[in-house]
Amino acid sequence: MRKTPKTSDKAVVLLSGGIDSAVTLYLVLKYGFRAFVLIFDYRQRHKKEISYAVRNAKNLAVPFEVIRISLPWGGSALTDRSIQIPEKQARKAIPVTYVPARNIIFLSFSVSFAEAIGAEKIFIGAHIQDYSGYPDCRPDFLTSFQNAANLGIKNKGIEIVAPLLKKRKSEIIELGLSLGVDFRNTWSCYRGGRTPCGKCDSCRYRLQGFAQAKVKDPLLSRENENYRESETNFR
Amino acid sequence: MRKTPKTSDKAVVLLSGGIDSAVTLYLVLKYGFRAFVLIFDYRQRHKKEISYAVRNAKNLAVPFEVIRISLPWGGSALTDRSIQIPEKQARKAIPVTYVPARNIIFLSFSVSFAEAIGAEKIFIGAHIQDYSGYPDCRPDFLTSFQNAANLGIKNKGIEIVAPLLKKRKSEIIELGLSLGVDFRNTWSCYRGGRTPCGKCDSCRYRLQGFAQAKVKDPLLSRENENYRESETNFR
Repeated sequence: MRKTPKTSDKAVVLLSGGIDSAVTLYLVLKYGFRAFVLIFDYRQRHKKEISYAVRNAKNLAVPFEVIRISLPWGGSALTDRSIQIPEKQARKAIPVTYVPARNIIFLSFSVSFAEAIGAEKIFIGAHIQDYSGYPDCRPDFLTSFQNAANLGIKNKGIEIVAPLLKKRKSEIIELGLSLGVDFRNTWSCYRGGRTPCGKCDSCRYRLQGFAQAKVKDPLLSRENENYRESETNFR
Repeated sequence: MRKTPKTSDKAVVLLSGGIDSAVTLYLVLKYGFRAFVLIFDYRQRHKKEISYAVRNAKNLAVPFEVIRISLPWGGSALTDRSIQIPEKQARKAIPVTYVPARNIIFLSFSVSFAEAIGAEKIFIGAHIQDYSGYPDCRPDFLTSFQNAANLGIKNKGIEIVAPLLKKRKSEIIELGLSLGVDFRNTWSCYRGGRTPCGKCDSCRYRLQGFAQAKVKDPLLSRENENYRESETNFR
């Protein structure tokens, strides 16, 4: 007989429409936490990833909140249509798809949510490939933010957990498959077309990850020539 | 002749409708910074403080952004109408008017804004009376958050400045008067009535501050009996 969950059994999970946060959510559920999902509508270039995140949360019958925010100052290709989505960004530089302080903002809301519902853990899908480019995915930032947050709130035991931190995309995909993640319900492309473009960094990492995991991306449908053509580069 | 301001001359200022942030804004302008104001509409109990903040920014011809956010999880008397605004809270406990992680969220947006416009300083009106009750006003939190933020962004030199930190309310009012702050354009009451209630903590601190500074609060108009009556307690 299962005991009534303790407060510490609640966990806040940041969910975008992508692979990493989807796998994180499945992992959190497998760990036995009661997950509470946060999805952000920050007026990104397209709403597709939001609908995929919502679909994912609904499929799993997990309670979720969609938080609408605006960052009217732009400064990123993901929020500012005057900046083009690049087709291949240098691996070591901070990409133009970096949104100023995005994860700092997302984590702040999750700290508020966690405090209000009495959750002690916040899960985020940050990992190696991200933190090579995005400073707000790096482990030292996550630890430092956790420390700051615990000084600024009423309850002091909040922990920020990034269970995929040291995994490569292919390992995340393999983990997801073992957890039963339905990757049809994930969207990675920075552009919001009917089908993924296959050319932006996010598509390329995804295709490379599936190729390295030796699994076929379920988004590779027949009507999707660009994506299929791009996929051949990673075999 | 004044030189063209350098990038480092830009400053983001958090502005509520209250006394502390108004004085902070005047101080920032006196220091010679080009101020960029952030005002938050977080669906607080009343919009009055937002209109006072906007009025203040407009009067000073300072550019501002009103950021609309929602914290659907409640957890505070300021956002959740099912929790009553108390008339006298214990000084040492965290008050029910504490909004979970509010300043963490506000500071996160200000870090994003600062990064996007190339500002290096963020000014916040936190001070002693606040940080006795609100953990997200405490100096160790502010320093720790600054350190975390600098790890998570592209430009590493952001500084969070709380110039009123060690001042009592009466000293802040005296400073404001010396800077020419028009206190008619400030609103402190937690309730959003036509006139201040005189009974909530925020009114009480304000009245006490003016009394100790030996100045008459310009909000003490004749049509404002409750507030005037309450004021006599602090003489």
